[in-house]
Amino acid sequence: MAKKTTKKKVTPGSRTTTTKRTTRKRGGDTAQKLLDLAHSVSDQVTAKKDPGVDIPTRALSNVAFDEKAGVIRMGDNTQRRNFFNLGQAKKFMQTMLIASGSAELIKQKKTTSIRDLFYHCKHTIAGTRENTFDEQSESDPIIEDLEVALASLREELGLFAEPKGAMVGPMTIVDNGDTIDLSKMGSGGWAVPSIVEDHIIQFKKSNAKFILLIEKGAVWRRFSEDRFWEKHKCMILHGGGQPPRGVRRLMWRMHNEMKLPVYVLVDNDPWGYYIYSVVKQGSINLAFESQRMAIPGARFIGMSSFDMERFDIPRAVTISLNDQDTRRAKEILNYPWFGKKKGRIYPWRNEINHMLKLGVKLELEALSSKDFSFITEQYLPQKMRDKQWLD
Amino acid sequence: MAKKTTKKKVTPGSRTTTTKRTTRKRGGDTAQKLLDLAHSVSDQVTAKKDPGVDIPTRALSNVAFDEKAGVIRMGDNTQRRNFFNLGQAKKFMQTMLIASGSAELIKQKKTTSIRDLFYHCKHTIAGTRENTFDEQSESDPIIEDLEVALASLREELGLFAEPKGAMVGPMTIVDNGDTIDLSKMGSGGWAVPSIVEDHIIQFKKSNAKFILLIEKGAVWRRFSEDRFWEKHKCMILHGGGQPPRGVRRLMWRMHNEMKLPVYVLVDNDPWGYYIYSVVKQGSINLAFESQRMAIPGARFIGMSSFDMERFDIPRAVTISLNDQDTRRAKEILNYPWFGKKKGRIYPWRNEINHMLKLGVKLELEALSSKDFSFITEQYLPQKMRDKQWLD
Repeated sequence: MAKKTTKKKVTPGSRTTTTKRTTRKRGGDTAQKLLDLAHSVSDQVTAKKDPGVDIPTRALSNVAFDEKAGVIRMGDNTQRRNFFNLGQAKKFMQTMLIASGSAELIKQKKTTSIRDLFYHCKHTIAGTRENTFDEQSESDPIIEDLEVALASLREELGLFAEPKGAMVGPMTIVDNGDTIDLSKMGSGGWAVPSIVEDHIIQFKKSNAKFILLIEKGAVWRRFSEDRFWEKHKCMILHGGGQPPRGVRRLMWRMHNEMKLPVYVLVDNDPWGYYIYSVVKQGSINLAFESQRMAIPGARFIGMSSFDMERFDIPRAVTISLNDQDTRRAKEILNYPWFGKKKGRIYPWRNEINHMLKLGVKLELEALSSKDFSFITEQYLPQKMRDKQWLD
Repeated sequence: MAKKTTKKKVTPGSRTTTTKRTTRKRGGDTAQKLLDLAHSVSDQVTAKKDPGVDIPTRALSNVAFDEKAGVIRMGDNTQRRNFFNLGQAKKFMQTMLIASGSAELIKQKKTTSIRDLFYHCKHTIAGTRENTFDEQSESDPIIEDLEVALASLREELGLFAEPKGAMVGPMTIVDNGDTIDLSKMGSGGWAVPSIVEDHIIQFKKSNAKFILLIEKGAVWRRFSEDRFWEKHKCMILHGGGQPPRGVRRLMWRMHNEMKLPVYVLVDNDPWGYYIYSVVKQGSINLAFESQRMAIPGARFIGMSSFDMERFDIPRAVTISLNDQDTRRAKEILNYPWFGKKKGRIYPWRNEINHMLKLGVKLELEALSSKDFSFITEQYLPQKMRDKQWLD
């Protein structure tokens, strides 16, 4: 029974709230937006109307690739969620509960996990056997609804996922009031937190010339141990596979605030292409966050399907593509931002088609068949020098 | 065709190798052991004998719980792996390749991942279509064989897994030559590396009174944000679920070198009990590492199945045990170190039986139904004060 309406304009509120340990402002906008939401609902109640909220539609039908900006964007379609509607009443209540929990979190100047918020909002409704939420799979989509309805990132609501990823390099940052020299982080590195907004993380001194995102933690460690970042003056970071939101948002901030180019180093397989594509254009599922996470200028430095010949990598260390790989590669070839269009996009068609032709994939670790440090001492320096990247 | 022999005595060699960035010694013992292995094989060849190596048996039949020490231990059974044996020749060759790759790694003063070593040792044998290794599933067990045969931890061979986990607290360490104040790590914390041996990590100043291991990164963040470690003078660390070897070894070192008691905080479910049990007594699969990883004195601080009543936690935030949980709980009840014996073990029978009786499990996040910081401000302080732990 969804009714289409136009997208609600949200007026930014005053910035008044401060965090405990820094002087930076946080939550002001979002706190105000939550308050506006609450007022809008209570006004409807006072006016004896059926209370409801407009939620932008999160579906493929409401997503498009913005060619000019180079990111995946959400459209303007919204759905109204009403209280006096049998099919929507529970979701309406859940939306109010999550909004109220988020407001409380901001008021307490705290952050928490989406699982924690689920528990915080879960209770049995007095006089019934009905729970507000039964599973976290009910509260997670409501959080996403709220993100898009308020045009606030989850991180601005104070919510985070399991942290993943690490970074080192020639840069000093302030994290929650502590000054941290990222060139003196030993072998472990600085664990990238989930929430890296500027009220928590501030960038200070930096000698970095670029950012290198490495798919895997184990390969990142080779770069860290060989002190690649010192020789090449760069930030090296990894996201333990598909980089989590914290890592993407941090790169986005360094890229935009410090004008550092971003290079992505992934396995040569469809999953690697996909990781690169999410960093660059955003994902279809979370198109609403593209604007604050996607880095259209991110460059694909490797591994390329042409690297096998370029670097004379023995066939024995390749892995045959399976059916799923082939299907996935063909799907990616049809992404408008990869294979479909003409002009500068052609190299991408060649890249993916060449992998399909060879019929093999190649992991970053395969370079170790030459030498443990081949990747840091020869492979990457040569590719950077010869500008062997795609964008 | 395995022949039982007695366990080979390994004589520690001289410590001569040093790492690049610290003055601590590394790899001396292990390098010597690898050399001894190579000499033993070449001596057999020179003497025109069938070359072979003795590998301690890694099977349940060769594992026992050492009641006095409180750890799971490997027995003395070994199997001989020969070159002139059709069923063993390939494995013999693979063992030599992995040993040689490890020796090279130590010689180059580098560390790498087990996947990387697989690729390093993988090649097509000249004049054949046969590969030395086809899958990593072939090289991983050989690495474990070598660990037990040399009585060297994988980390001493310079091999690591994907890093996982973070730590903060009132302690200063040296990591790979960099001095790091773990009380000034912001919101992210110090990412615990996979290799934490004393040639890489050294402990300097510390005001910590105990160590708190928290199962989940998201809950750890609550403790970090609320600065629990500052108020209670402790190290807080997490391992992102089942803690990886680096986290276990680091705790072991802090526990033994600095005499810090260890408290384990996990979900109240069979998986949580199992995580605690591995920290405490080691695992059956990797019994040979117990001596250098297991912490028999580790205490289980929660969550306990009795906490629901103690802290008046609403039923709505519990989760019903499923069949697998019940089966797993009964299995754990039969572990000799939990339920089987009399005396001080009785409380553990009560703990697990009470969970079975209630028929529900409880996650750490469930405490947030009371308040976001209930866990750091009330739950844990009360349990510590009232000594409500099991060991």
